[in-house]
Amino acid sequence: MPTPPPLQGILETAVYVDDLAKAHAFYAGVVGLERMLETDRLYAYDTGPGETLLVFARGQTIEDTVTDGGVIPGHHSEGPGHFAFRIAADQLDPWRAHLAACGVTLRSEVTWPAGGTSLYVDDPDGNVVEFAAPPLWANFMG
Amino acid sequence: MPTPPPLQGILETAVYVDDLAKAHAFYAGVVGLERMLETDRLYAYDTGPGETLLVFARGQTIEDTVTDGGVIPGHHSEGPGHFAFRIAADQLDPWRAHLAACGVTLRSEVTWPAGGTSLYVDDPDGNVVEFAAPPLWANFMG
Repeated sequence: MPTPPPLQGILETAVYVDDLAKAHAFYAGVVGLERMLETDRLYAYDTGPGETLLVFARGQTIEDTVTDGGVIPGHHSEGPGHFAFRIAADQLDPWRAHLAACGVTLRSEVTWPAGGTSLYVDDPDGNVVEFAAPPLWANFMG
Repeated sequence: MPTPPPLQGILETAVYVDDLAKAHAFYAGVVGLERMLETDRLYAYDTGPGETLLVFARGQTIEDTVTDGGVIPGHHSEGPGHFAFRIAADQLDPWRAHLAACGVTLRSEVTWPAGGTSLYVDDPDGNVVEFAAPPLWANFMG
């Protein structure tokens, strides 16, 4: 295989929901993300410099979308997906308290072999959303 | 709503595949990611500091997983998902050439209103993988 050109990381992470309004109440209201784009098929949230959370209306992105700039390939997903937010270790207690104050039930909490901790909650559509504090992965140690 | 504690960004982005070996040939061999974890249900790849791509064996993560550190909630997904890598604008041509050299067909190419460009390919399981160069989102302008 030839040597790949450089990547800078992941720009877009996607989740699929049945109800964009309910998802917005969670991702903007509870999680605190700023919405950058609002269409009838997609809300896009700023999760940090060069990072975007795409919340797709399930079933609205199956077909390819023809734009003036080219064809956006279709995709879709059934079933509860998963992604994780990165938090600082000293923000575990504030996040526990915040989620409780918002009425969001903590589904579970995991202590990892490396010593870090993850808080798991369901978004309104049942997607498994994790708030993870280091040390956890080899590239996320603190 | 109370004010949310700070988030540092997205730690984990997930994709679901039917064949981990074929996925590895793509994500390690073609894309060039380093694998940090290899189990029978999950490969995890380093996509940059504090960023991980999780490649799940479809159907192997539906049930909750009980560990010594707590319960990892189950999740799963049917259908081709989507995520995007961030690349520099001057790496579009190298990525076009590299994907072609690897025999990966470019499914489409989109020029965005802000001026950036995305290259779309399918991974071996049909997940829609995007290589996106700025300017594109309000927080990804160059």
